[in-house]
This record gives sequence, C-alpha cells and structure tokens, in this order.
Amino acid sequence: MTSPIDKLIYALGKLPGVGERTATRLAFFLLKSSKQISRDLSEALKDLHEKIKLCQVCCNITQENPCRICSDTRREAHLICVVEEPSDVTAVEKTSSFRGRYHVLHGALSPLDGIGPDDLKVKELLERLKDGGPKELILATNSNVEGDATAFYLSRLFKPLGVRITRLASGIPVGGELEYLDASTLAKALEQRREMS
Amino acid sequence: MTSPIDKLIYALGKLPGVGERTATRLAFFLLKSSKQISRDLSEALKDLHEKIKLCQVCCNITQENPCRICSDTRREAHLICVVEEPSDVTAVEKTSSFRGRYHVLHGALSPLDGIGPDDLKVKELLERLKDGGPKELILATNSNVEGDATAFYLSRLFKPLGVRITRLASGIPVGGELEYLDASTLAKALEQRREMS
Repeated sequence: MTSPIDKLIYALGKLPGVGERTATRLAFFLLKSSKQISRDLSEALKDLHEKIKLCQVCCNITQENPCRICSDTRREAHLICVVEEPSDVTAVEKTSSFRGRYHVLHGALSPLDGIGPDDLKVKELLERLKDGGPKELILATNSNVEGDATAFYLSRLFKPLGVRITRLASGIPVGGELEYLDASTLAKALEQRREMS
Repeated sequence: MTSPIDKLIYALGKLPGVGERTATRLAFFLLKSSKQISRDLSEALKDLHEKIKLCQVCCNITQENPCRICSDTRREAHLICVVEEPSDVTAVEKTSSFRGRYHVLHGALSPLDGIGPDDLKVKELLERLKDGGPKELILATNSNVEGDATAFYLSRLFKPLGVRITRLASGIPVGGELEYLDASTLAKALEQRREMS
C-alpha cells in the first residue's frame, strides 16, 4: 500500500519540470499548509476536464458556447487571429491591442510526429471562411519550423478564397540587445527591415 | 465567474516557487494531457489531509497507528533520532544507515516567529523517555540558528534524565571541495577535526 504522501509525490512528478526532489518539497509544503490549499487545487483539477469545452466557432476552450469572445459583438468579426494553442489566445489578449476574433488550431503541422492538417482545426476554419465574414487571417503560429510550415500551408489553402493573409512580424524583441540576440532572429530582423518615416 | 483554467492557475500559484507564468504553463499542460494525470493529482491532494495522521509514539506522519517504524520490532528502540520534519525522516531513511527509531518535533524553536517548546512535540518526547527504553537521543535538527538552538534546549532538558545526547557531525560534505565551501562550514570542519587512524 502506497502512502498518501508517496502517491502525491508520484502525481506531482508527472508535471513538466518537476523532478522527484521538487515533487517531495511541494508535497511536504502542502502537508504543512492549510487544508484549504490542497482542497482548492484538488477541486480545480477535478473541474478542469469536466467543465471545459471547445467553442463551436473558434475552437478555443470555454465554458459557454459560443465562447465569450465569439459572442462579443463589439469585436470585429472580419479579422481572425489564427493561433496554435488556447494559451496563445491568453497571450494575445494580454496585449490589449487586438480587437478581432480567434481561431485555435490545437497544434501545428509536424509530419515527424504524425500531425497532419486533419489533426488540427483546419476544417472548422475553412467553414468560417466559407460562411463569409472574415476578410483577414493573421497567422500567429509560433516562429519555429512547425509554426512556419503551418502558416505556409494555411496561406496556400486560403489565398484562393480571396481573403487577406498576414503573418506576425519577426524581429528584435522590444528591449532586446543585439549582443545577446540569436543569429536567426537577427537575420530575420535584417531581412524584414523597414523604412524609417 | 472565473473559468476553470483561471481557477487552476490561481491554485497552482499558491505552491512555493510557482509564479503566474509557471502556473499558466502547468495548467495548459494539464489541459492538453490525458484526464488521468489531473484526476490522479486531484485524488492524491484530496487524500493528503484526510488520510494522514500523526503516529502516537514518534509524531511522524502515518496511516497506521503506531507507524510502521515504531511497530517494527527489528528496529532498535533505545536509539532515537530527533528531527524537525517528516521530510527529514525520509532523508535519513534514504541513507539506509540508521536502524533506530525517530521523533518528529514538527518545527524548531524560533522566538522571532513565536515558536516555543510548547509548539513542538517536546512533551511527547519527554513521555517516551520517562517510559524508559531510549538510551540515546541523536539530535538531528538542522544546522542553522533555529536547529542549533533547539538541539541546545533539548540537550539541557534531557541530560538530567541520564540519557546519552549526541548531535550530527558538521563538516565538509562528501565530494565537497574546499574552494567552493562557505566559511562557516569550513570553520566547523576545522573545529571538529579528528585524529586519523
């Protein structure tokens, strides 16, 4: 019979970046802390998969259907930001500088991992475009091999539909110093340099 | 209404060393992973405070009473290793070089935090000594101000009972190099130097 503390250490060890030492430290922290902390976390974990659904329009995670962003009439319906994951929606929302809507692909193309277009929410995006409405797709997939390949694939697929396709700019991060920048970012920044006004 | 994912991020953020960014990363990891991982963790957290009790003899955490170590007749009953926390028992057990029993104080003296002898399991240790049996107490509290003060206090309290009182040795960790050692450890190692045979 495994003790509750060993069971907890084992379960915590499944989290990314949490080894046995950290799991042990966290478990004993929880044991010493008030019951409320463990109880809140336990409840939140139980609810996670039970209460969260995918929005029938944008495929983002939501409790309501359609989600709050898709049913918000103040947000521009003709502008769609296409992202890989729900966490990317959170990241873009934090900038407070996007007033359009989203489409969450739930991944990126990755032939090596056997992930093709049918594994992503591409069909759902196609439906939205066929219904009319969207006039611009901002491809905000990650700036890595998979993200770039996905953006390239989507642009080839959707261009014929007469919709404007854009990609997030690549370059030096705000506050970034050239000295510490990796070579590929710097190369992109040079390549995509723009006229100063 | 807070969304399940925000609730989880908030709950994870209560863990030591987990800020908002890490909590967000962990929450989305759990969302993408199989339900089983969240469910196991949720169950383990629920059981933690419900199933764990303190052993009536050594005050270590346990499911049975007395705990498995206290009821193991093969372990020497006259040798008691006194530690601050249940996690210290785990640490000593891992060495496989201690065959006595334990006593867990659940803390160390710390007048600044208002922690006095009555807040620790000192009375319980006194009872064990009065019952006879224990002949040596190894004071294995931490090697810091609070741990040293606690060891000093306990040694003054229990010496008159005619029991042998020892303290863990301080010195250079195995594999440690002098160059990288802090001054106080090196000073202790010098002070407690021993004859070579």
